[in-house]
Amino acid sequence: MAAKSVPTLEDVATRAGVSRATASRVINADPRVREAARVAVQAAVDALGYRPNRAARSLVKRGPDSIAVVVPESDERVFSDPFFSGTLRGVTQALASTPLQVVLVMGEAGDDDGRMGRYLRGGHTDGAIVVSHHQDDNLWRVLEQTQLPSVFLGRPYSEQATMPYVDVDNAAGARLATEHLLARGCRTIGTITGPPDMSAGRDRLRGWEEVLREAGRPTDLVESGDFTAAGGAAAMHRLLERSPDLDGVFVASDLMAVSAIGELSTLGREVPGDVAVVGYDDSPAATLSRPGLTTVVNPVSQMAGRAVALLLRLMAGEDAEPEVLSTRLVVRESA
Amino acid sequence: MAAKSVPTLEDVATRAGVSRATASRVINADPRVREAARVAVQAAVDALGYRPNRAARSLVKRGPDSIAVVVPESDERVFSDPFFSGTLRGVTQALASTPLQVVLVMGEAGDDDGRMGRYLRGGHTDGAIVVSHHQDDNLWRVLEQTQLPSVFLGRPYSEQATMPYVDVDNAAGARLATEHLLARGCRTIGTITGPPDMSAGRDRLRGWEEVLREAGRPTDLVESGDFTAAGGAAAMHRLLERSPDLDGVFVASDLMAVSAIGELSTLGREVPGDVAVVGYDDSPAATLSRPGLTTVVNPVSQMAGRAVALLLRLMAGEDAEPEVLSTRLVVRESA
Repeated sequence: MAAKSVPTLEDVATRAGVSRATASRVINADPRVREAARVAVQAAVDALGYRPNRAARSLVKRGPDSIAVVVPESDERVFSDPFFSGTLRGVTQALASTPLQVVLVMGEAGDDDGRMGRYLRGGHTDGAIVVSHHQDDNLWRVLEQTQLPSVFLGRPYSEQATMPYVDVDNAAGARLATEHLLARGCRTIGTITGPPDMSAGRDRLRGWEEVLREAGRPTDLVESGDFTAAGGAAAMHRLLERSPDLDGVFVASDLMAVSAIGELSTLGREVPGDVAVVGYDDSPAATLSRPGLTTVVNPVSQMAGRAVALLLRLMAGEDAEPEVLSTRLVVRESA
Repeated sequence: MAAKSVPTLEDVATRAGVSRATASRVINADPRVREAARVAVQAAVDALGYRPNRAARSLVKRGPDSIAVVVPESDERVFSDPFFSGTLRGVTQALASTPLQVVLVMGEAGDDDGRMGRYLRGGHTDGAIVVSHHQDDNLWRVLEQTQLPSVFLGRPYSEQATMPYVDVDNAAGARLATEHLLARGCRTIGTITGPPDMSAGRDRLRGWEEVLREAGRPTDLVESGDFTAAGGAAAMHRLLERSPDLDGVFVASDLMAVSAIGELSTLGREVPGDVAVVGYDDSPAATLSRPGLTTVVNPVSQMAGRAVALLLRLMAGEDAEPEVLSTRLVVRESA
């Protein structure tokens, strides 16, 4: 069993005629090494077939080097909704003055023994920002158990989750949108919701319901669009089938709102003449849409910046409190 | 110095009345622990203020858990060019039967002491696939020094790089495109290239040059579009200024080709009547474009699958040889 042992770092150093520390520096690509030593160590590595194992590699580095942006969604959804690229850009910009690399970890989490949970338990990053979290993904529990400094962007669904979060006041945003539809004279107002297993989906629905209930209007014209373009168009179709006299709709994301407008056009309805539409996000799509989309601002970049600030506090061993940002309506042509 | 020492895992286990192994399992969220033990360990952790450090966390896990897809580009570019989402989807699908999590690492690499280099040297993943590599990013050298199993998707720019790669025969693809333009009667043929510091950019330019040179045509109508939409439109503009009688153009990516067609329309030129356009990628944009885009297939999903296969071989300690896939032209309306 000991006849042909695996070569060690000591073997490499001995063969190269350098110290163990120098050999280690070369193997870890530390620039503070003379070229002659680098060549000698590389030759020894090649001759001995030395391979540093991962554990050894990971112990060489000291100090934080990365944070994970964790998105429990399919990569298809992450790449199709500009909310995610905006968030990621905000995180990257907020980290510009630090030495930290952002790593993006995507995938449907579901069961917490899956690959995402295993990765997070592996201790490969120094902190995590969770974006677009769902009721059943159990991420908060995994992160709490690993004690990895973690911040949620969007309030955790479970009230048991103890980590800080940054959220926008989604219910207040939905109230602004619905009050705007009432104020412009809409009488039959529906809503296309996000997923009911996300706090943003629930809160935006709640704001719409509150305003209509206070105005003495019905609150039954609800269809889920699942935060996807296809879901938004299908939900718009169902709303019009259920209520052909619909004249206003609050749509819980711009991505869904733009395709709802497309569906209305296909069905021969004019926006805003026949049906007024308010979205949520104020993403680039809201400006590009024809007609321009009236929408609620989701301050993605600001939220990302605050989430990074909270995370850096946690990583420094300090406390961090949840923050809820305010929002406002941007009026364009669609309502 | 020893008066109030940092609590250890042993302290936690003693206080909770469980073995060190059980305490470790609870802290690492291993499901194979009785609820009573979990509660006791959590209480001990809280009481003692125990925090497992990252090194400890990273040593608990055994066996590979993740691979990095490394893209030395800004997140803005990664999210705007469908080549990247297609590649990422291919990698994720190819890993579906393994327990490996994909982590996406983006950012302009530039100097190799930057954050990306530090992260890669940290040993946090079990392998790397490098996509969209540039001449100066030095990634191949960083990866060679860390000895992390690595595969390039797209041939490394430097011939010194020893890691295996998967590439498509970009020069052959460009030849197909240019031969098609010649065959349909184009006489003044330009090209909009990718970045000259990428092997795909160079190889596609070379294929276009070879065909024109063999046909006795000039090869000076070259403008760089940098693989971005804005760059493609600007390059198209410059080509037409230089040569108003241009009647054919080979564009080295679909993203650039679609915006070049937009620019031609702005300048009052019809496609393909006045100017025939061939792209490269066969991305979804090629089908959605009006007119439909004639283009060269970049077999992104297949390349990603082969890159994963090579990487898994390397991670198993086996050898892997470079692979170059063939390609073909898809003729639609634009040429």
